[in-house]
Amino acid sequence: MLAADDGVAPNIIAPVRMSSTFGDLLAARVAERESQIVLGLDPDPGALWPEVASGAGSTAAAVVAHCRAVIDAAGPACVAVKPQLACFERLGAAGWEALEAVFAHARERGLLTIADGKRGDIAVSAHAYAQALFEGLRADLATVNPLLGRDAIEPFVAGARAADAGVLLLVRTSNPGAADIEDLELADGGRLWERLARITDELGADGVGEAGLSDVGAVLGATEPHHIPRARELMPHAILLLPGVGAQGGRVEDVAAAFAAARAGGLVTASRSIVGAYRTDGGDPAHSARAEAERLRSTAWALAPA
Amino acid sequence: MLAADDGVAPNIIAPVRMSSTFGDLLAARVAERESQIVLGLDPDPGALWPEVASGAGSTAAAVVAHCRAVIDAAGPACVAVKPQLACFERLGAAGWEALEAVFAHARERGLLTIADGKRGDIAVSAHAYAQALFEGLRADLATVNPLLGRDAIEPFVAGARAADAGVLLLVRTSNPGAADIEDLELADGGRLWERLARITDELGADGVGEAGLSDVGAVLGATEPHHIPRARELMPHAILLLPGVGAQGGRVEDVAAAFAAARAGGLVTASRSIVGAYRTDGGDPAHSARAEAERLRSTAWALAPA
Repeated sequence: MLAADDGVAPNIIAPVRMSSTFGDLLAARVAERESQIVLGLDPDPGALWPEVASGAGSTAAAVVAHCRAVIDAAGPACVAVKPQLACFERLGAAGWEALEAVFAHARERGLLTIADGKRGDIAVSAHAYAQALFEGLRADLATVNPLLGRDAIEPFVAGARAADAGVLLLVRTSNPGAADIEDLELADGGRLWERLARITDELGADGVGEAGLSDVGAVLGATEPHHIPRARELMPHAILLLPGVGAQGGRVEDVAAAFAAARAGGLVTASRSIVGAYRTDGGDPAHSARAEAERLRSTAWALAPA
Repeated sequence: MLAADDGVAPNIIAPVRMSSTFGDLLAARVAERESQIVLGLDPDPGALWPEVASGAGSTAAAVVAHCRAVIDAAGPACVAVKPQLACFERLGAAGWEALEAVFAHARERGLLTIADGKRGDIAVSAHAYAQALFEGLRADLATVNPLLGRDAIEPFVAGARAADAGVLLLVRTSNPGAADIEDLELADGGRLWERLARITDELGADGVGEAGLSDVGAVLGATEPHHIPRARELMPHAILLLPGVGAQGGRVEDVAAAFAAARAGGLVTASRSIVGAYRTDGGDPAHSARAEAERLRSTAWALAPA
C-alpha cells in the first residue's frame, strides 16, 4: 500500500506487519520469545481467580480483570493468547467489550492474538466475519470451520492477508466426537480430515513466506498425536494449532512431529491446565499459572529442532 | 418447573412456551400467521434503507433503525426473522447491542427469532455458545455447524430444550462450495450431507412434539431443491430451513417437498430479495419489501398441504 516515495514518514509505518507474511511474523515472534505456547482464555464466571475478580463491578469487568491477571502471570512464557469467543458472547454486548479489552491487553504485552470462534458461513457472511475478526478485533489468527467448502473459506483467507494475519482451519479437532464426522472414510480414499488437510494446503499455497510457513494453518487436536506426522505430510507449510494438552488429556511431549520443519510450525495451546493450575498444586493462582506455562514452554522448546 | 399447586397465578405463566415442544410452538405460529417465510436480516452498512438510516447517530444505530423498519414492513408476511450474526459482530460491542435490540423488536412484533451464527465447538465451548444464544439473545432457533460431531452438538440441543427452543444443523448449505465437503461420497455409502441428516434425525428423536416436528432441524439450501425429497426421507420430523431463495438463485416454487408432512416442516428464508426489492422494482423500500415477502408467503402457502 505504501510506495517508497509517497512522503509518509517512516516512523509511522509498522515495519514487521507490512513487510512479511504472517508465517514470517510468527517465526520471528516464536524465536524472540522462545515459546510455542498459546495461552487459552476461556473465562468461566464461576471459576475466575477469586482475589482478582472479587472487586469488579460487573461480570464482564471481573472477566477482564481475570484475563489481564492471567496474561500478566503466564504471558511471559507464551507467544500468543487464544480467547474463546463463546465465553465472552454469553455476556452479551458487555462481553464483546471485554473481549476487545482482552485483545488490547494481550497486544500491549507483546503477545499475538488468536480469535477462537470457529466461524464459517457462505461467502457474503464469511466476509462479514472476516471484518469482525481481522478489522474489529485485529486478530493475528482466527479459527475457521471449513465444512461449507472453498468459496466459504476464501473470504477469511483474503481478509486475513489484507491484515497481515492468518487463518487456522479445523482439520481434526480434540474432542471424542471428532470421530463421528472428521474421521469418516471417503469413497475415493482417505478420511475426511485428510481431505480438509489437503484443502488447507491448497488454499495456503500462495501464502508461504521465507520461514516456510503459510498463512493458512490447521487446528489439530493433541489428544490424538498419531495424526500429527500424517498431517505434517499433507500440509508441509501449515502452522498447526494443537489444542487438547492438559485438561483434555493430551501431552506436550507427544507433539514433536508438529515442529519437524520449523519451531513455529506447531503452537501448543493450553487453557484450563494453566489457569486452574493452582487448584491442583495449592499455590497462588498467578504463581501456579506461570509455573505451568513455563513447564509447557520449556518442554516444547526442548522437543523442537534448533 | 411449575407444579399444579405451587400457588403461582396462572396469568404470569407463558403457556405456549412451557407446555409444548418447539415444533408444536412453531406449528401453532405458522398456522396463526399463515406464513412459512423467514425474514433474513444481513444488514450491510453500505446498503441500508436510505431514509431510515440517514438520521442515525452511529452505524450501529443506523443498522437498528434499518432492521426495525424492515421488520415493520415485511414482518407481517413472515413467521420469523433470522439475523445474521456476522453482520452485527463486525460493528463490535455496539453491534452486539444492535443485535439484542433487533431480537427484542422482532419478538414485540410477534415473530420468532433465528440466531444465524453457525456456531460449533467442543462441548465446554458449545455450552457457552448455547448460553449466548438461548439465554442471552433468547433465540427460538439457532443454526449450528455439526462438523465436530455429536458431543459438540449435544450442548446446543440441551441448551435449546431448556429454553423451549430448537437448533438447525447445517446439513447441505446453499453455496456452490458445499459440493467440496458436504457432497463427498463416503466409503460405506451415501454422501456426507446424508450422514449429517441421519445424525440430525437421531439427535432430534427425543424432541418430536404432537405436530410431528422435532426440535432438531436442518439447514438445506433451496439452490439444490432435488435434495429436499431425500432429506425429508432421512429426517421425517425435521424442520427444514431453506435458504438461497432469491439472490442466490433458488425458487420458492421448487421446495414443495419440504412441506410434505406439515406446513411448518419447511421455513423459506429470504434476505436480500426482500430488503433490496425496491432496487429492482423502483418502489418505496418498505412497500417493495412487503410486496415481495407477501409474494413469497402466498406462493409457499399455496404449495403446502392444507
